[in-house]
Amino acid sequence: MTHSYSSALATLGEFGLISRISAAVFTHGSVITGIGDDAAVTTISKGMQLLTSTDMLLEDVHFRRSWHDPYRLGRKSLAVSISDIAAMGSLPRWALLSLAIPSDLSLDFIDDFMRGFLAMASENQVVLIGGDTCSSRSALVVSVTVMGEQYTDRIVRRSGAVPGDDIWVTGTLGDAALGLKLLESGETVSNELLTGLLDPEPRVPVALLLAEAGLATAMIDVSDGILADYGHIAEQSGVGGSIHIDNLPLSASFKQYTAGFSVIPYQLVLSGGEDYELCFTAHSTNREKIVDCAKKCGIDVTRIGIVTSCSGVAAVHRDGSSYIVQTDGFNHFK
Amino acid sequence: MTHSYSSALATLGEFGLISRISAAVFTHGSVITGIGDDAAVTTISKGMQLLTSTDMLLEDVHFRRSWHDPYRLGRKSLAVSISDIAAMGSLPRWALLSLAIPSDLSLDFIDDFMRGFLAMASENQVVLIGGDTCSSRSALVVSVTVMGEQYTDRIVRRSGAVPGDDIWVTGTLGDAALGLKLLESGETVSNELLTGLLDPEPRVPVALLLAEAGLATAMIDVSDGILADYGHIAEQSGVGGSIHIDNLPLSASFKQYTAGFSVIPYQLVLSGGEDYELCFTAHSTNREKIVDCAKKCGIDVTRIGIVTSCSGVAAVHRDGSSYIVQTDGFNHFK
Repeated sequence: MTHSYSSALATLGEFGLISRISAAVFTHGSVITGIGDDAAVTTISKGMQLLTSTDMLLEDVHFRRSWHDPYRLGRKSLAVSISDIAAMGSLPRWALLSLAIPSDLSLDFIDDFMRGFLAMASENQVVLIGGDTCSSRSALVVSVTVMGEQYTDRIVRRSGAVPGDDIWVTGTLGDAALGLKLLESGETVSNELLTGLLDPEPRVPVALLLAEAGLATAMIDVSDGILADYGHIAEQSGVGGSIHIDNLPLSASFKQYTAGFSVIPYQLVLSGGEDYELCFTAHSTNREKIVDCAKKCGIDVTRIGIVTSCSGVAAVHRDGSSYIVQTDGFNHFK
Repeated sequence: MTHSYSSALATLGEFGLISRISAAVFTHGSVITGIGDDAAVTTISKGMQLLTSTDMLLEDVHFRRSWHDPYRLGRKSLAVSISDIAAMGSLPRWALLSLAIPSDLSLDFIDDFMRGFLAMASENQVVLIGGDTCSSRSALVVSVTVMGEQYTDRIVRRSGAVPGDDIWVTGTLGDAALGLKLLESGETVSNELLTGLLDPEPRVPVALLLAEAGLATAMIDVSDGILADYGHIAEQSGVGGSIHIDNLPLSASFKQYTAGFSVIPYQLVLSGGEDYELCFTAHSTNREKIVDCAKKCGIDVTRIGIVTSCSGVAAVHRDGSSYIVQTDGFNHFK
């Protein structure tokens, strides 16, 4: 049931490809045995818990080869899982990468993909410790698992939001969703709008500072749209929320592009996918400390709403009137 | 870039499917936070190291829906990664499962797959702690990560074999390769020949006993054929080996099927894939203890050769003459 492979990769073979990848891997002292045995062996730091998250990226479902160059695709493939570990206020440490490679994919593509993946790994002090490679009869499939660690009392879950807490978000929202809409309609798109979509940066430093200082009561990464993702915090914390849409942070590019519109397309900001920013809740006495944390990390944070005691998440205008939106985020099944 | 989904699954949605899966999951005390947050949180037992392994299974590359019923496919998807943790002499503890689901797949298929996956998990005291689900435009893709733990001095690597050690293997070899050949040629195949191919049982109990007693000097699971897999032990231990082909353990079904052949198809036994047995090396003074360990686990073990100091792995007959074979195992790229 094996399948033929592109000639350069067939010559290299599965073990040749693994050796080629292993040779480029950065490592650190926590890795006892990395790539090359039946399983990787790593040491969890004393007193810390293990955190694990996994994501699968499919060609033509999560990415297109015509839009995503291999280098940035490699970066993003790891970034989305690092973002999940960051959203727990935890330190990403190790990664596993599995690739199902179609026969028309060149060795250059794999090399560029791996350069991007390993650059993202190295920027975040993450070690690639294992994975799997096989041939695919159709689409390129990328599956990444990232493991991290953190002291028990510093881990930030979705379940700790309390009525009266502020709702915060890092960076800006809606760029990736707008960028995707424009790409889909064949329009020229500025680089700023595409950064989140093609090369998101996981917010590890600010997540760690917030966790260490005990400032975030709940946290999630915004991958399915702020409404859906804050909705998870609300559900798991047994609270509700009011999102003030006039406070939602928009990038200069987003504002510029939508300046001529009769209505700002807030549905992209509220329910568009792939922002990969952090949404967190915090007690209102900690506003200054939170702004200081963000400043230290060179990132903007914005208060976008309030945790409420009633159930449900509402998007409201400054005058208190409701904004009517689609609330199902980026449902991969629809 | 999202893709339409079969109606029952589309109605259920990604979060509905995850809830459905979560509801059936068995758990244990080491799992602090399982499915439902950005990352799972688990506790490594005091003094133990973390072991991690991952495998990707693609439809029409690693399995066919016409051959693999969903229940056994679910079991096997987890078994192959548990087998890797066992091959390190370690205790499998937690699993992650990612599924890319084509639009023609029914909810019944997913339910049966999950029943099989979770039965295999529960039999091995493994907890499903996370994963990812998305739609696929073509093939069903299954990606599994299994994590385990073990005390540092009990972990068995590929690198500890010493010249003069015996080479051992659990169970029988070649059944899966012969079963696959027969399936491919459309012949009727007995259940025994298909067990390894369709429903392999990871050899966890015997692996743990061998590791705890310090009996195995090196170990690997046989997934690419004993010659290729022992070859990894030889390479990483800086030794060679002599495999005695007349000693290779064959099942009653294998013997019965090949009884009429002019030559026993040893290439299937040596280089066929997917045996999922353990190959390990051990000092010759420990033969009785090893047989006792295996007996306690209700499994056969067979001495199939000797670790040598010269490089290279040779397959030889009882009279010392060489057996000429293909040595590249089950190369997924060819």
